[in-house]
Amino acid sequence: MGGDHGPSVVIPAMARALAELPDNVCFLLHGDEAILAPAVAEHSGAAGRVTIRHAERVIGMDEKPAQALRRSKGSSMWNAVEAVRDGEAAAAVSAGNTGALMAISKLILRMSADLDRPALVASIPTPSGVTTFLDVGANVDCDAERLVEFAIMGEAYHRAAHGKVRPTVGLLNVGAEEMKGHDEVREANRVLRAGGFDLDYRGFVEGDDITKGVVDVVVTDGFTGNIALKAMEGAARFITGELRTALTAGPLAAAGALLARPALLKFRERMNPAPAAPLLGLNGLVLKVHGSSNGRAFGQALRVASDLAQSDFAAEIERNMGRLPAALAESSAEPAADGAL
Amino acid sequence: MGGDHGPSVVIPAMARALAELPDNVCFLLHGDEAILAPAVAEHSGAAGRVTIRHAERVIGMDEKPAQALRRSKGSSMWNAVEAVRDGEAAAAVSAGNTGALMAISKLILRMSADLDRPALVASIPTPSGVTTFLDVGANVDCDAERLVEFAIMGEAYHRAAHGKVRPTVGLLNVGAEEMKGHDEVREANRVLRAGGFDLDYRGFVEGDDITKGVVDVVVTDGFTGNIALKAMEGAARFITGELRTALTAGPLAAAGALLARPALLKFRERMNPAPAAPLLGLNGLVLKVHGSSNGRAFGQALRVASDLAQSDFAAEIERNMGRLPAALAESSAEPAADGAL
Repeated sequence: MGGDHGPSVVIPAMARALAELPDNVCFLLHGDEAILAPAVAEHSGAAGRVTIRHAERVIGMDEKPAQALRRSKGSSMWNAVEAVRDGEAAAAVSAGNTGALMAISKLILRMSADLDRPALVASIPTPSGVTTFLDVGANVDCDAERLVEFAIMGEAYHRAAHGKVRPTVGLLNVGAEEMKGHDEVREANRVLRAGGFDLDYRGFVEGDDITKGVVDVVVTDGFTGNIALKAMEGAARFITGELRTALTAGPLAAAGALLARPALLKFRERMNPAPAAPLLGLNGLVLKVHGSSNGRAFGQALRVASDLAQSDFAAEIERNMGRLPAALAESSAEPAADGAL
Repeated sequence: MGGDHGPSVVIPAMARALAELPDNVCFLLHGDEAILAPAVAEHSGAAGRVTIRHAERVIGMDEKPAQALRRSKGSSMWNAVEAVRDGEAAAAVSAGNTGALMAISKLILRMSADLDRPALVASIPTPSGVTTFLDVGANVDCDAERLVEFAIMGEAYHRAAHGKVRPTVGLLNVGAEEMKGHDEVREANRVLRAGGFDLDYRGFVEGDDITKGVVDVVVTDGFTGNIALKAMEGAARFITGELRTALTAGPLAAAGALLARPALLKFRERMNPAPAAPLLGLNGLVLKVHGSSNGRAFGQALRVASDLAQSDFAAEIERNMGRLPAALAESSAEPAADGAL
């Protein structure tokens, strides 16, 4: 029911995903049955693979998380996450209210990692693919342990979502040298280097490396990540706006833009690479789809959910997380290790 | 002598600035006299308004700040900053090594504000003008006091550089609500709201507000600011790269791009708004110009330096800074003030 377009986008996207995904992938569809049933009936491929679960209430896109949470029981979003907890669904996908989805997921599924809230992943386009960037959510204060948790979760997510066997991981900082940055990033850097995790950690990266694709996974705290993501989105919106102005400024430019239109449309498509943002650190899979997503984007999100559900994602995270307490203890036992060298 | 192009860019830019600036604006030109003297002699307007100060040494663009500092005495950069301290020059402008310029300026001029290093300002284009964004430098750990200092200095700089009588100021955060963010930004928000400063503070802004131009001055710590700035630069480079690829992908697109070329060039120009980045918090004016700046950009920087030198910039900063200790004391005396309401 969620997102800016609701079932008019979700149901055709689901129908397309059904055609592309293996036969054993089925959908539980949560929401107003009176709206959903006739819409689903239009798609013959949905027969036998889609079950509608009626919900009385839908959480509004503008409701505050705390307020939404109080009245959320029995809503379509609540029921979708509950189905994950109860083992009925392998993953929940929603284009609804992000804050409410975070709060409900945390309440129902509980956190597996030691975070305030689930970490939110953004997928940033690069010349050669996609950078997995986290946390862009609301874990504002992050110590070294949380940054290492993000690295572990982001690496496993990138492999499951993008099929890369051994994604590379970097830690966002103001410079590449070991002594740069504040205590938390330097400590996280030491732990990731020495901790014996099963991941390909490459050290510090800088802000412009996110779109360069220097590493596959860029890790930062939720404060910096949220601001850097929005700053990049703002820059992209400003640039495409200015470009539009430039290309409609006169008859010559407009004629040029018309000729270049297919190329410009392809260019625009490239700017929106991956619509699914997993909420990481929960005991269960929940994916947030951008509220303004079109059917193609929502369909991609369903494929990512299916890939994640069928991957070793959770087990891989658990294995590396198991190494974390010892790695932190070793690091704090030798605080001057790299200072002394 | 500094920058990627050295005197071949600096001297023609200075000649143009001489023609545009009032007659009482004169230049001390620091560097290798054997190179500078013949280049200056080509410009008749320089006669009587340019004094060459020979320097034996030039600091390399790639020297590490600590290393550069050790061997910096008597270099062109050292002499330029020393001339500010000695009252011979009202401002120093350099396109040289940023880290060395920061270290030399701090050593010679000393800090006026309570910062690790000078705050570095970036100028970000917006649909209606320019956002002054700071600190994008190296003050990695910033408490509330430092954030308030950035607000005071950024506001005065924006007025002097852009002629806006009453610039608006915002504090970068992950949301607009009072309770968002970490302790330091919330404390700085309280102090700026209640501190009785002579500035138009508008509260929290988000990452995408930097390019929207929601406020004139966006304040953040040097860690977030450096990363957000580089992330935006990276996004801009990626987008223009993709655009170039799209517009050369086939004959139709290429023909369109050719027709739209003047518009695209104007677009590119808009992306590089202000080349001068002042180092704020020093007892004296020092401006850093981007190393890759062309003559037009370097000339703009000289005009900004002249505007700053003739403004009430320093006195305005001092007045608001004088209010800071009392404002901080009031804020810490009522820690629960806005929580209790």
